[in-house]
Amino acid sequence: MLIKFDRRAPEQDINLILTKLNDAGSRAFRSRSNQNPVIVTTGNIDILKELNLDKINSVERIVDISTSFQLASRNFKEANTVVKVGHLEIGGDKIQVMAGPCAVESREQLFQTAQLVKACGAALLRGGAFKPRTSPYSFQGLNEYGLKLLAEARSLTGLKIVTEVMDTRSVDLVAKYADILQIGARNMQNFDLLKEVGNINKPVLLKRGAGASIEEWLTAAEYILAGGNENVILCERGVRGVNEFTRYTLDLAAVPVVKKLTHLPVIVDPSHGTGHWRYVTPMSLAAIAAGADGLIIEVHPEPEKALCDGGQSLTPKNFQALMARLATLRGIVHREFEEPKIKLQSVNMN
Amino acid sequence: MLIKFDRRAPEQDINLILTKLNDAGSRAFRSRSNQNPVIVTTGNIDILKELNLDKINSVERIVDISTSFQLASRNFKEANTVVKVGHLEIGGDKIQVMAGPCAVESREQLFQTAQLVKACGAALLRGGAFKPRTSPYSFQGLNEYGLKLLAEARSLTGLKIVTEVMDTRSVDLVAKYADILQIGARNMQNFDLLKEVGNINKPVLLKRGAGASIEEWLTAAEYILAGGNENVILCERGVRGVNEFTRYTLDLAAVPVVKKLTHLPVIVDPSHGTGHWRYVTPMSLAAIAAGADGLIIEVHPEPEKALCDGGQSLTPKNFQALMARLATLRGIVHREFEEPKIKLQSVNMN
Amino acid sequence: MLIKFDRRAPEQDINLILTKLNDAGSRAFRSRSNQNPVIVTTGNIDILKELNLDKINSVERIVDISTSFQLASRNFKEANTVVKVGHLEIGGDKIQVMAGPCAVESREQLFQTAQLVKACGAALLRGGAFKPRTSPYSFQGLNEYGLKLLAEARSLTGLKIVTEVMDTRSVDLVAKYADILQIGARNMQNFDLLKEVGNINKPVLLKRGAGASIEEWLTAAEYILAGGNENVILCERGVRGVNEFTRYTLDLAAVPVVKKLTHLPVIVDPSHGTGHWRYVTPMSLAAIAAGADGLIIEVHPEPEKALCDGGQSLTPKNFQALMARLATLRGIVHREFEEPKIKLQSVNMN
Amino acid sequence: MLIKFDRRAPEQDINLILTKLNDAGSRAFRSRSNQNPVIVTTGNIDILKELNLDKINSVERIVDISTSFQLASRNFKEANTVVKVGHLEIGGDKIQVMAGPCAVESREQLFQTAQLVKACGAALLRGGAFKPRTSPYSFQGLNEYGLKLLAEARSLTGLKIVTEVMDTRSVDLVAKYADILQIGARNMQNFDLLKEVGNINKPVLLKRGAGASIEEWLTAAEYILAGGNENVILCERGVRGVNEFTRYTLDLAAVPVVKKLTHLPVIVDPSHGTGHWRYVTPMSLAAIAAGADGLIIEVHPEPEKALCDGGQSLTPKNFQALMARLATLRGIVHREFEEPKIKLQSVNMN
Repeated sequence: MLIKFDRRAPEQDINLILTKLNDAGSRAFRSRSNQNPVIVTTGNIDILKELNLDKINSVERIVDISTSFQLASRNFKEANTVVKVGHLEIGGDKIQVMAGPCAVESREQLFQTAQLVKACGAALLRGGAFKPRTSPYSFQGLNEYGLKLLAEARSLTGLKIVTEVMDTRSVDLVAKYADILQIGARNMQNFDLLKEVGNINKPVLLKRGAGASIEEWLTAAEYILAGGNENVILCERGVRGVNEFTRYTLDLAAVPVVKKLTHLPVIVDPSHGTGHWRYVTPMSLAAIAAGADGLIIEVHPEPEKALCDGGQSLTPKNFQALMARLATLRGIVHREFEEPKIKLQSVNMN
Repeated sequence: MLIKFDRRAPEQDINLILTKLNDAGSRAFRSRSNQNPVIVTTGNIDILKELNLDKINSVERIVDISTSFQLASRNFKEANTVVKVGHLEIGGDKIQVMAGPCAVESREQLFQTAQLVKACGAALLRGGAFKPRTSPYSFQGLNEYGLKLLAEARSLTGLKIVTEVMDTRSVDLVAKYADILQIGARNMQNFDLLKEVGNINKPVLLKRGAGASIEEWLTAAEYILAGGNENVILCERGVRGVNEFTRYTLDLAAVPVVKKLTHLPVIVDPSHGTGHWRYVTPMSLAAIAAGADGLIIEVHPEPEKALCDGGQSLTPKNFQALMARLATLRGIVHREFEEPKIKLQSVNMN
Repeated sequence: MLIKFDRRAPEQDINLILTKLNDAGSRAFRSRSNQNPVIVTTGNIDILKELNLDKINSVERIVDISTSFQLASRNFKEANTVVKVGHLEIGGDKIQVMAGPCAVESREQLFQTAQLVKACGAALLRGGAFKPRTSPYSFQGLNEYGLKLLAEARSLTGLKIVTEVMDTRSVDLVAKYADILQIGARNMQNFDLLKEVGNINKPVLLKRGAGASIEEWLTAAEYILAGGNENVILCERGVRGVNEFTRYTLDLAAVPVVKKLTHLPVIVDPSHGTGHWRYVTPMSLAAIAAGADGLIIEVHPEPEKALCDGGQSLTPKNFQALMARLATLRGIVHREFEEPKIKLQSVNMN
Repeated sequence: MLIKFDRRAPEQDINLILTKLNDAGSRAFRSRSNQNPVIVTTGNIDILKELNLDKINSVERIVDISTSFQLASRNFKEANTVVKVGHLEIGGDKIQVMAGPCAVESREQLFQTAQLVKACGAALLRGGAFKPRTSPYSFQGLNEYGLKLLAEARSLTGLKIVTEVMDTRSVDLVAKYADILQIGARNMQNFDLLKEVGNINKPVLLKRGAGASIEEWLTAAEYILAGGNENVILCERGVRGVNEFTRYTLDLAAVPVVKKLTHLPVIVDPSHGTGHWRYVTPMSLAAIAAGADGLIIEVHPEPEKALCDGGQSLTPKNFQALMARLATLRGIVHREFEEPKIKLQSVNMN
């Protein structure tokens, strides 16, 4: 149950209701949505009726939500959330492609890739500076130096930057450089981290955990929303299914399911979701056909030399071809695509 | 390992090699591919070298295949298999849509649906006469009467018929009426049934089991191919993943994976794969974008009255809209679609 | 909903109620439990009340069952079902061990194993004559000759025989030789086969499919019970989980879950459930500690030469050691174990 | 590949080898095991041979390990690791039971439970002060006040304390109060947290993630070991399988699998693994029969009033009965159990 207040609701009104709910044996928490104060309560609607809340002027709306996620629910907010990253919109009329290397490895590697993905029509650059690696002996990222390179790449190309944050202690640092902070699949239920990014005013890309149900995923998003940060982008990246030739089972039905349940934008990561470059192109097309708002794709100038996940990275040529094929989906999904801005010949394409 | 013979290879050549292989401790089985005799052996290539098989004129080709499926492997046959159903081709240039009710319930229900799906551009009619139902107390199908109705619907509309066979004892009966025999997901490893449909000369639609790996699926297809029936169509219909809002997790990446591993055509069943009509349209578009050769979709004139799986059946209106959207994918996948033949207004559309 | 009649209920009473239920729009089916006629209906209890069934003398009990399985439910029959195989009881006070080779390979292999497992205290001999193999090129069993060898082994040792039936056409043949007919995991939802074994008067061992939910499993058992065969033994043998070092994930919690939901006995197959002999002993002990009524275990005199599943077969020595350790669980589970009858030295133990 | 040095190995020896390996194109990292310096390298053994490492006196051992985990591997350390918590041993001859409430709720609730579990023979008290909750609106724990209550309970009873740490910023705080720090299933791949607890000198209980493979789990343990903390206790608590009547599928075969692969002790959490108190007792017995070194069990004086996971908590009576049944497993698993120290009548048992 959600009680949404007028923006200028007097504190005493809110506190009175909180007290009444708690006295009536319900649990009630204060949160906010946009600038509006909100009370989330687990009490049922009958208790609220007895409290005569509708006589309190500052109460704008009472919403009965039966799912475990409230602020994230489409019952609470019917219109699609469009997340703004500068002039860019995610969840709007245009399909957005985030592309770049798995990990930032060097200035040369990053800048070359950045120019290339921009030339092909991507508007956002992905690249990990802090890398969650299964093994402690794998390359763990360039850390702040990687963030600085990403910021330089942004200056150079105008691409917006999306990069992962893994630790509560690094949120401020990453937020200083990134345009979008990514929460990786392995940290989807790192609740302290979710709370921390709920307190910043930058968009958050929340990947679905490999073993996470859709309800768990949306309730993880709820942590961020409940902190007051409404700019959450969901990202499907594969679940444990019956896998053998792919790394995970990319659950594309999650796209229309999530679109029905929530107002948040959702993109797809076919690189991690399949684990093989060969399947990235068909699954990218399929994701957009299923209704996704965008893609996050790994591209590397020389995948065979990548320090991380080379096997699932597209070569520049394959990425260029994918972008061209994506553009032809325009009519089907009634969405726009970014057109290549510069001649592809002018960048180093192998 | 596969040894493929000339069509007119003398029996004694084949038997000689079988004997030699068995004497050398290898297991060797006789099979055929098209009209060519084939020996499948688990022995390694070194043994074959010692046997000097290349000196036997009737040996056309020796293929070293390391997967558990041989005849189904793209290593054995590089070109796509195109399954012919009369003039129709599955796996060819045209996307084929099979549509109709989950179960044949009555003449009226079937004929109405048949005319409708034809009007919308489908070329094949699906409908169950023998129904595999989880509960023994659920409607189990009209049996032979259902088959007769399907055959009548074919006469009336020209649509080809695809229907399920569940029991070895019914194979001849179903083959008498059907154009394509369907093996359901629950019978994917009913090996006696696979052997039985390997002996008939009608195409077989082999659905993937909900818990089956891709290798198990292709090895099930191998049973049919090894019996001499090369007209196998694979059908992805969802696996056990992390499901809650859908009945299964539709594994669309299986489409490009299977296209790489095998030469057989593959279609997708978004109705069973999601279990909800709402997700059938986006997943149909996604399946074709991922490279599927066709779709099998449940359509019912009045889903709310269906005796079986009404919740996942499209209404006529939704099916018509889906077919129109599918046609717009034409350019992207470089495939053709059947155009509606008759005015939609002339059939009963609710 | 279940309506149980007196054994001598007049046919007209039963038919009257069937008619009334159908007229009232409910689906109603006739079945039986023991010798008692039963009507299973999907109608709700209110309809039944209006029919004044309690005034009909031959109606013994009306049971409101909300699960999809009825006759299998503990709500319908509270006392444990004890399946009798001659003098043996499965589901009674004694833990029963079924042991033997995966496949019957030869007289010598079978008889040697039979004597051994008997000497170690097993009371039933397992062995496949018809083998469901993933690949068509694997050894498929000795068929009727294998059944004959099993019957000979029974004459020789007094062990009861459990063996798999895969095809509706073979049910009579297998029932002629076997004491218990096994339905394998891959055929758990081969509904025609379930119906067929529902018509015979021999016990059926029903293995859980690797992707089957517990409800699907119990509803498969319902098919057999609804046919009138009440002697169903359930067998957990592993599901798809997060597997890498084992073939499946043995779901031992299924044992107490099933014990709560149903009155049927349940045994565990640690050989297929783990796929490695090394894990058979700890999982056997764990299964009994979890409350299982017995075990089915693969034993082979020379696992490294087995034509089928050698890697998961226990050597005689390991089987002997397992049986000794199982006996020590006696006090914990308040169950009895068969004592070794003959000196182990008298059989060939490698 | 692991190179283990003498404890007093000169720094220059170690650095020389690191340099040589890096020059040869291998990745090499410094770690330690006990007090011994260790180099972990991804280079193959041939490179090492060329470096003539065996001529360097301070090199104690070179171990070729092909798994992704090295220090955790039984190939590296053959003998079982016994984790010491004061006088207690985990992984030694005695089965250890950790019991207590899901969350610390109040002084009274905690102390009552602590006295009870001690009276029943448990030697460790579990209880969450920081709680990872799926929903942001659920009770999140008493934080430091909860830790203080745990420490008081220790003073009162002598029980050792195990409690969860969720955030890198809280590691020092939790380590100040706890005897064992727990990493929850959702944080199993929170790599910064793993690194942080790798730097402290208190034992760590590492739960397996619900979607984590055994290799991922052991490689997560490797992060802690590589930091120099060798006191890692593994805890199986259920994976995603085919669940409906239980919360997860408790993978008991993981116990013998892990015992084979690694030298670390492993315990089982049947409370979270099943999610229902009814299944905790059979799965506890099964876990010990499968070879687990201990259990972690939720006990609450009044489960129906618990702020967290009441449905899976044992009542005092059921816990007492479980401990009595566990003691009877003594002979089977050749392990000891703690005997009840005080008369059960002297504590409040409901």
